[in-house]
Amino acid sequence: MAACIFCKIVKGEIPSFKLFESDKVLAFLDIQPLSKGHALVIPKQHGEKLVDIGDDALAEILPVVKKLAAASGAENYNVLQNNGRLAHQEVGHVHFHMIPKPNATEGLGIGWPMGPTDMEALKKLHAELKAKM
Amino acid sequence: MAACIFCKIVKGEIPSFKLFESDKVLAFLDIQPLSKGHALVIPKQHGEKLVDIGDDALAEILPVVKKLAAASGAENYNVLQNNGRLAHQEVGHVHFHMIPKPNATEGLGIGWPMGPTDMEALKKLHAELKAKM
Repeated sequence: MAACIFCKIVKGEIPSFKLFESDKVLAFLDIQPLSKGHALVIPKQHGEKLVDIGDDALAEILPVVKKLAAASGAENYNVLQNNGRLAHQEVGHVHFHMIPKPNATEGLGIGWPMGPTDMEALKKLHAELKAKM
Repeated sequence: MAACIFCKIVKGEIPSFKLFESDKVLAFLDIQPLSKGHALVIPKQHGEKLVDIGDDALAEILPVVKKLAAASGAENYNVLQNNGRLAHQEVGHVHFHMIPKPNATEGLGIGWPMGPTDMEALKKLHAELKAKM
């Protein structure tokens, strides 16, 4: 993807603060951080959403996110991966955020609009989804 | 962990709407969903935070999250894993949320308190973190 900013970072056409690199994944600092230590892990292969990425690359991502979390020394942190503009995805190349949460104002803000538990609806949905898994 | 609700789900002592199970991971519907299809993937082994989970279990999680996303049919969705009470973790056993985002009101709400880019501070932090990776 010639126009993708993360593909350019992978190719070294744009500089980045690299923290980890393997054949399949790359980790670097977010330069517009929500808190100190906010970093990203991406698959090197271009793909817009999680469902576009191969399982071999996906398998490598969380162990690297774990390394980032440990290195940051954060006690509280969020791991977030957004898919689609409506879900707050800003760059169309899959990326996992590791965002330290040092206090109530810095780091990720979370809204949790929980609905009531509807066991009948869940039972029906469960049967539908199970057939698709 | 005798008191852990997710350990009880793993052991079958509490029922759940299971969607996937292997030796190391389990996926099931969230019964207090933020949107239709909101599901969880957990390592079976108890661990409070991401840094407490073995890489072998972590490697299996995202391929399962991907299956959940595909089965839900969602175009927009968030993948979220919270560590620590300050970061909105409600159950002290690592869990990954796959939350469809069907519209602006349902699904995950995100606050993004982005600060200014400070290249000197990033450069210094990069050197510190790289030494710890």
